[in-house]
Amino acid sequence: MDTDLVAALDIGGTKIAGALVDCEGALLVRAQRPTPARDGAEAVMRAVADVLAELRASSSWGRARTVGIGSAGPVDASAGTVSPVNVPAWRGFPLVDRVAAATGGLPVVLVGDGVAMTAAEHWLGAARGYDNALCLVVSTGVGGGLVLGGKLHPGPTGNAGHIGHICVDLDGDVCPCGARGCVERIASGPNIARRALDAGWIPGPDGDSTAAAVAASARAGDPMAIASYARAAQALAAGIAATATLAEIDIAVIGGGVAGAGEVLFEPLRRSLRDYATLSFVRHLTVAPAVMGTDAGLVGAAAAAWASQEKGAGAPTPQAAALR
Amino acid sequence: MDTDLVAALDIGGTKIAGALVDCEGALLVRAQRPTPARDGAEAVMRAVADVLAELRASSSWGRARTVGIGSAGPVDASAGTVSPVNVPAWRGFPLVDRVAAATGGLPVVLVGDGVAMTAAEHWLGAARGYDNALCLVVSTGVGGGLVLGGKLHPGPTGNAGHIGHICVDLDGDVCPCGARGCVERIASGPNIARRALDAGWIPGPDGDSTAAAVAASARAGDPMAIASYARAAQALAAGIAATATLAEIDIAVIGGGVAGAGEVLFEPLRRSLRDYATLSFVRHLTVAPAVMGTDAGLVGAAAAAWASQEKGAGAPTPQAAALR
Repeated sequence: MDTDLVAALDIGGTKIAGALVDCEGALLVRAQRPTPARDGAEAVMRAVADVLAELRASSSWGRARTVGIGSAGPVDASAGTVSPVNVPAWRGFPLVDRVAAATGGLPVVLVGDGVAMTAAEHWLGAARGYDNALCLVVSTGVGGGLVLGGKLHPGPTGNAGHIGHICVDLDGDVCPCGARGCVERIASGPNIARRALDAGWIPGPDGDSTAAAVAASARAGDPMAIASYARAAQALAAGIAATATLAEIDIAVIGGGVAGAGEVLFEPLRRSLRDYATLSFVRHLTVAPAVMGTDAGLVGAAAAAWASQEKGAGAPTPQAAALR
Repeated sequence: MDTDLVAALDIGGTKIAGALVDCEGALLVRAQRPTPARDGAEAVMRAVADVLAELRASSSWGRARTVGIGSAGPVDASAGTVSPVNVPAWRGFPLVDRVAAATGGLPVVLVGDGVAMTAAEHWLGAARGYDNALCLVVSTGVGGGLVLGGKLHPGPTGNAGHIGHICVDLDGDVCPCGARGCVERIASGPNIARRALDAGWIPGPDGDSTAAAVAASARAGDPMAIASYARAAQALAAGIAATATLAEIDIAVIGGGVAGAGEVLFEPLRRSLRDYATLSFVRHLTVAPAVMGTDAGLVGAAAAAWASQEKGAGAPTPQAAALR
């Protein structure tokens, strides 16, 4: 049966990926280009247009009804613009209008990449079946998204759940965002590595000083490496507990490169959560690793697009019902 | 015209208030009893029953369709129980069932008192017209509630928006809740007073060492008093900014006794918000004093009841439409 599809775009600082996605989350046709992140605004847009042109060349394109975009942030879904930190030429870039024009006027839904990853984990991943969830991406930065009352909660501008920039340390180090003691300033990969090095951790003979190398040392029992992950876990736990206390969530799903540390992160995280998630209605909170992998951005952009079709239609479509 | 009414109950550690409330928020009939907070569970319930009996004696009672309860927390709306910190005999007390029985089986809606205050400010107060808002009560404790997407967001258990117990200081002082560095541990009235005294602030000749007395000293230029309010404002700002970053809110409405300090609190609060609310989608955030006063609990309990009627009915009633 020729069911409807959505066209999904995942826009990051390294690559621009696209796919035609069906109502079960299968990626039927794919396209990808490197992001010319240091070039001008039109060069970056040309890469997006090339990805879309490749999708349009598919015989399935005629079934595409909506475009879903998950983009590196900040985004402004209300204005239809994006200003990805890692794509300097795009500041307030009118991506929604440009993509609509490039697709013959299809409706376009824009969310931040943390929100897209959350939509993917809720649709088909570790947050499936949870009505209230926080999903985090802990990597070079720390992002996230929320599911509330069984539905994705992107917020008016598509940025809700941005846990990396909530303050958990009033008098802490200044964060590039301008605030102090943000979760990202303590728990991101580069900050885990920096803190270990500052404490005297010595990288192995290959000179690898990434958070992954710190995790390997922690696994081997290095106390400085263990302490750096414990501090990251403490900040993440305080942030997750804050989210649960504010929004009532049942699960926190954690993805991104730093989550690849496995129990080096998750063991102290569960321990710290017991310290910070104390009220009766947040004590049951669980954490779980993300499962959607590198396609999470595309699948999540598709999920956001399906959800918007549902909203627009007034009544759930069979496809959109699968989102809940 | 004999329009529908709701019966509202506001249950606190000092008093139990009740009212019949119309679809415009007018309190038509009132009743009140002191809370026998140190007595047994049934004695407290008897005071609730007395309030309800007084409302039932009114000729308007026949128009009551729903009961809305705002209670001191923690509450568990999913279980229909309350465990108010200041009413030790009520631990998991089945208030919803008991009130349903005492009202001849009317449907009962339960929310926490912070959520109720939020419902009131959103319906008829300082958050009116805002689709995304946080309301706070800063008093002996710090509570709150959320409006998201134009609607009250009580969360599954009726406790969402509980900003007093989010951590803004990872290594801060232990809070009675068991966590560290909670907003309440820094910004509540007793903590404002304690911090001023610890810093060497000397109460006036009347010996008044409450947060209100500290505010009076701050107004007169006392540096210790000013510093204590500035620290409270900093913690509140970090918590409000965190809420905006997580849930995308446009306004924070602040009530409770500590908000009575006026510019002694609001001036440093606005300043600190600029420090902590840094991302593009939260920078526009404003703060405003609450306006609903002591009836906020009753009006808010009524608002929550009206909102639940709307939800149950599937389509908005004219009354419920007024809530949005």
